[in-house]
Amino acid sequence: MSSKKRTSKKQSTGSAESRQTVAQGLLRDLGGSVYTDLDEGRFPSLTLASRSVRNIVYDKKLQQFILGATTVKKSSGNIKHIRPFTQLIWLAYFAKKLVDEKRTSTLRDVFYSAQAFNVEFQDQAESDELITDLEVLMQMAREGMNIYPEERSAIFGNMTIEYTVPGYEGKTADLSANPDGVMIGPALTTAEFRDTDAELVLAIEKGGLFTRFIEERVHQKYKAILINTAGQPPRSTRFLIRRLNQELGLPVGILCDADPWGAHIAMVIKSGSANAAHLRELTTPNSKWLGVYASDIQKYKLPSDKLTEVDIKRLYELKSDPRYTEKMWHDELETFLKYKRKSEQEAFARYGLSYIVDTYLPEKLEMMKSS
Amino acid sequence: MSSKKRTSKKQSTGSAESRQTVAQGLLRDLGGSVYTDLDEGRFPSLTLASRSVRNIVYDKKLQQFILGATTVKKSSGNIKHIRPFTQLIWLAYFAKKLVDEKRTSTLRDVFYSAQAFNVEFQDQAESDELITDLEVLMQMAREGMNIYPEERSAIFGNMTIEYTVPGYEGKTADLSANPDGVMIGPALTTAEFRDTDAELVLAIEKGGLFTRFIEERVHQKYKAILINTAGQPPRSTRFLIRRLNQELGLPVGILCDADPWGAHIAMVIKSGSANAAHLRELTTPNSKWLGVYASDIQKYKLPSDKLTEVDIKRLYELKSDPRYTEKMWHDELETFLKYKRKSEQEAFARYGLSYIVDTYLPEKLEMMKSS
Repeated sequence: MSSKKRTSKKQSTGSAESRQTVAQGLLRDLGGSVYTDLDEGRFPSLTLASRSVRNIVYDKKLQQFILGATTVKKSSGNIKHIRPFTQLIWLAYFAKKLVDEKRTSTLRDVFYSAQAFNVEFQDQAESDELITDLEVLMQMAREGMNIYPEERSAIFGNMTIEYTVPGYEGKTADLSANPDGVMIGPALTTAEFRDTDAELVLAIEKGGLFTRFIEERVHQKYKAILINTAGQPPRSTRFLIRRLNQELGLPVGILCDADPWGAHIAMVIKSGSANAAHLRELTTPNSKWLGVYASDIQKYKLPSDKLTEVDIKRLYELKSDPRYTEKMWHDELETFLKYKRKSEQEAFARYGLSYIVDTYLPEKLEMMKSS
Repeated sequence: MSSKKRTSKKQSTGSAESRQTVAQGLLRDLGGSVYTDLDEGRFPSLTLASRSVRNIVYDKKLQQFILGATTVKKSSGNIKHIRPFTQLIWLAYFAKKLVDEKRTSTLRDVFYSAQAFNVEFQDQAESDELITDLEVLMQMAREGMNIYPEERSAIFGNMTIEYTVPGYEGKTADLSANPDGVMIGPALTTAEFRDTDAELVLAIEKGGLFTRFIEERVHQKYKAILINTAGQPPRSTRFLIRRLNQELGLPVGILCDADPWGAHIAMVIKSGSANAAHLRELTTPNSKWLGVYASDIQKYKLPSDKLTEVDIKRLYELKSDPRYTEKMWHDELETFLKYKRKSEQEAFARYGLSYIVDTYLPEKLEMMKSS
């Protein structure tokens, strides 16, 4: 591959500052609509797209689920709505405070913080639900409002980033400086990409293979930025993968275990989840699932295990999922069901620890280029 | 606190190079003993301390479990022993190869690698068991033989480290350069500590609080190195905490949820686990459990939940555990059982997001200094 250096001086839409500006504007508008209702003598109300299953439809062009035309209204004039209406307004207030103060919070923190304001959530499941409602209302992921989950994954590669979070504005970091990888949290998600010679992104399901790739210098040999998704990647990691794809134009390849759960990790990176049908910033439609395919189990004679009943049930679910209609995906689901075997990324170790890097990966990267 | 700079130029026992030398020596001795047996006309055999429950005893002075005097012998002259004997010898061969080639492997990789040599393990549970036998035989943690688990945690703080892994020898990194933290994997575990003004280490159970502490500048305000244990810390993280304590003389404080599982995270960092009774390098006996205590739930009027039956069963198990005889620990277990309530680190958010840093933490650090 030829070496092409990508540098960027401009501020991206992913930076903490530009996300802050957008979130502040949206939250101010939300508050403004409540004041307008009051000024005009109406009970304040909020109208948002319905998240009921019937209103979640697959959009072939966007290659993701979206919300349909059905809306629901939460009105302070309806006794049954007062509780969720108040909760939503408080959440918007709390998010505004977070964004203004440039602080982050976990979903769990939000649940407990409500108690300081005598706002009641029965449990975290309820506050999580309402946070999703706020996302729908704002058309913005909660990460944009500084609300993060606990889970983290990691990144490694030849890239200089510039942090945009408080206390780190303008500070750069080299993502190849720490060979165990850097955590992907609020700071990294909102960092600017400054300088890289990378030509692709590889998202990897497991920490073991992530480390193997670093040890075998995949970042140099194939000019790859490596991302450890640590299982199903947290949304902030999916947001970061999309940014790498869209802002730097880097192709994205995904490597997972050969089982329905692994395939679905690749699918969620590509086409998102039904739960996030109201968002457009978490998918990478042109990313490629590179394997391990069901057909690779035979092709590479990999050690494999019998599919469990739960695996098989899951495969039938995926078969009827609109995201899996593309021929290649559909064929692989059929192959799983035909041979009823599954395998793992580590299974390549039966051919020696570097086989997956020296043999399997180049074949997959060729395929990625030609497809 | 006064500022004291700690610098270190010498090579520690934790570096990749010194661990490599020790592991190579031990593995060579192991192989040598097999050759000696053969040369002298005996069936080769290996004798190791028994890991049966009856041979695991608590050592009050070391404040950890140790293996007693009972040994078991695996002899190639006994038909029943041939399988585990062969597996052990292959594991030693594979570990030697890893160490010689300066590569790491996961437990899962080891399981699959065996197949390349037609060495059979029924499943990973069996290969994990035999790896533990090899640890017992060598009196060395598998991490010293470059065998790591999948799980990772993270570190952040004012400290310069120097990596010792291949390709990174002599390269330094600043552990405050990435505000989401750096992963603790094979490279960080074996890095040399070069330069720090830190005066203590805080091990934190959850990523959310870890990020909160970084945002609130705990690393500067309290000169703390922060470690996200991500639940029960992987052994390599415990090894790193011990190194920070022993090589730099830094006191270690541990912050977890107020439930039996949180308390036990603190205990395992302090006194290790029965599973690792054969090792001495994974405990930090003088580390301090700082909370959240059962008694803190009342003291700080924290939001709390009822203990479940599983929690209560666990508390009775801990009560009869020799590691919990110290008065403070025992009293907290009693308090849990008295009020039957549990709480979480995030529960402090009911007093605002910075309360835990501004009020709770200073009180705990005072306690830590005076105890």
